[in-house]
Amino acid sequence: MSNASKPRLLVDLQAIEHNFLAVKRLVGEKVEVSAVVKSDAYGLGVDPVVSSLASAGCKSFFAADVDEAVRIRRRLPDADIFVLSGYRARRKAQYRHDRLVPVCNTLGEARTISSTGYSYALNLETGFSRLGLNQSDVCRFIHLNQRSPVLVMSHLACADDPRHPLNALQRDRFIGIAGLLGNVRRSLAASSGLLLGAAYRFDQVRIGSAIFGIGNADFKPNSFLPVIRLRARIVDTRLFQAGATIGYMATFRTSRPTWIAVIAAGYAHGFPWSLANRMSVEIGSHRAPVVGRVSMEYAAIDVTDIPAALRRPGLWVELISTSQPVETLAGPAATIPQELLTRLGRSSQRRYRTNSAGEQT
Amino acid sequence: MSNASKPRLLVDLQAIEHNFLAVKRLVGEKVEVSAVVKSDAYGLGVDPVVSSLASAGCKSFFAADVDEAVRIRRRLPDADIFVLSGYRARRKAQYRHDRLVPVCNTLGEARTISSTGYSYALNLETGFSRLGLNQSDVCRFIHLNQRSPVLVMSHLACADDPRHPLNALQRDRFIGIAGLLGNVRRSLAASSGLLLGAAYRFDQVRIGSAIFGIGNADFKPNSFLPVIRLRARIVDTRLFQAGATIGYMATFRTSRPTWIAVIAAGYAHGFPWSLANRMSVEIGSHRAPVVGRVSMEYAAIDVTDIPAALRRPGLWVELISTSQPVETLAGPAATIPQELLTRLGRSSQRRYRTNSAGEQT
Repeated sequence: MSNASKPRLLVDLQAIEHNFLAVKRLVGEKVEVSAVVKSDAYGLGVDPVVSSLASAGCKSFFAADVDEAVRIRRRLPDADIFVLSGYRARRKAQYRHDRLVPVCNTLGEARTISSTGYSYALNLETGFSRLGLNQSDVCRFIHLNQRSPVLVMSHLACADDPRHPLNALQRDRFIGIAGLLGNVRRSLAASSGLLLGAAYRFDQVRIGSAIFGIGNADFKPNSFLPVIRLRARIVDTRLFQAGATIGYMATFRTSRPTWIAVIAAGYAHGFPWSLANRMSVEIGSHRAPVVGRVSMEYAAIDVTDIPAALRRPGLWVELISTSQPVETLAGPAATIPQELLTRLGRSSQRRYRTNSAGEQT
Repeated sequence: MSNASKPRLLVDLQAIEHNFLAVKRLVGEKVEVSAVVKSDAYGLGVDPVVSSLASAGCKSFFAADVDEAVRIRRRLPDADIFVLSGYRARRKAQYRHDRLVPVCNTLGEARTISSTGYSYALNLETGFSRLGLNQSDVCRFIHLNQRSPVLVMSHLACADDPRHPLNALQRDRFIGIAGLLGNVRRSLAASSGLLLGAAYRFDQVRIGSAIFGIGNADFKPNSFLPVIRLRARIVDTRLFQAGATIGYMATFRTSRPTWIAVIAAGYAHGFPWSLANRMSVEIGSHRAPVVGRVSMEYAAIDVTDIPAALRRPGLWVELISTSQPVETLAGPAATIPQELLTRLGRSSQRRYRTNSAGEQT
């Protein structure tokens, strides 16, 4: 797709740094704040994101897999880099060469790596019911008299709901199982877990969503800044009479003479098809509703009430902004903000804002 | 993301050729069948797709923009290549160098290009209410005594519903406006329009979805073959007791001792978050329901009823197959199959099947 016609995803690296520092202030000096940058930093670009975070003082990172971890190592020779997908024996040399710390998710992985002499972390299954060693796995592991991990961790399933009883249950199990391993650094909370209080923070928190500005409705005051803006260009603007139907399956009918602007943002760019007739875009201080279905490369907006000078072809409109952050669109799009980030990041042109004076690509 | 852990999207190039030839047989020798390969061939990879189509006899292609068109020209020195995004004066040299035919979407574009001597197509607005010249634009254009286009086209909004009155209305308008231009080749129908009958086919049809195997429930018998399969690897399998909750927000609770397999497919790979608890995957001839939420890189399936030999870590499961084609997942995912294709194509590892003996990458 021509760059000229793709939507632009503006990633504010200053906001990412701000959010990292806000978490650091929140948890205090005794708790290490690690950045979770899996899936290409939630779609925002692992290279610029980890450089920014490092310059803000972040010293440890969680990558999805070895390839992503190697990219981080190239940028950050001194960082602690954890690999969430665990230990793959066929990549053995890479862990050593780049000093990567696999997060072992099964007893088999843990036994294999503890015989190698490499540093490793252990993931515990405490109620998420996905990956990790459960209590009986850990008992067997200890019985084999293996080397200790550098970090023991688990993941909360329901931290988005501070009242959910599974939070305390997972915490209790975590303390119990981790205790079997003796004096090892512990990590339980991710972004949502921050709001559960200090009792959930242990030695290290692993922060993704909060760094990327995704707010939690229960977390007030929201000390995190929005990180992304999404802009699309107007490619044509024209007047239709009352009674015209707009786009596929004629899901919108004009009730008055209506100026329609076609914007170059469609579902191939990560702009969800499910947002048809369910959101407005921003044009300066004005708002223009998306009318009719979102198609592969285009969507239509009703700009009748927008001043003519602001709705001309070639101008930009904002789909995601500081006043309309990504989490406000997730519900109407029938998804979560994290999915929107990963979709938009892959499909739009990314631009990085490093300071108020300009952008860098 | 490590290739080893990504889902694999198998693209069956033979099925694409079969579908192209099925359209050709349907419309007969007098109607040209063009392939719409915008958005990287609906996410499936424009390079291998256009080579396959050309070997099946396809001679004309519609690209999203100049960059995509240039890629097609590199593969196919003799094809007719149309550029749907229109004419951009700043890319002027590229149209000439690569013999690209812009589809002009506005009177301004049409006037500009008709003064250059380049071949061009004209898009007419007949009721889709998006891009294209309307009747009054065309009258003004003719009045200026401009060179004729090589093709005049429009796009049906409601062809998915053969009973929708807008189909006939758009056809009538198309005939009327195109008639003003004299003896020019005409194209109205895309994939959905095929089922409206010969009266909608004119000189040329522009086929995307049907070539990529996306069926239309109203089009029977369905002579198109599914084109994609999506596979993910099992990374762990373990037993949970009755009453365990699975994944984020504990949306699934086991009612019996349950074997859960974690598969390496999540929303970062284009597997929709909205499919949580709403579909099953295939394991051989068996089916295993997706249980709990889809997370960024993983999903969980209930494999209790699957033979133990088929649910071991390292084995593959099928999310999309010939018996569970992509259009069956679109409804539960609250989207359309075309959006799923573009999402999966960008995020999975693509593999191409060229013949029954093997795959090529």
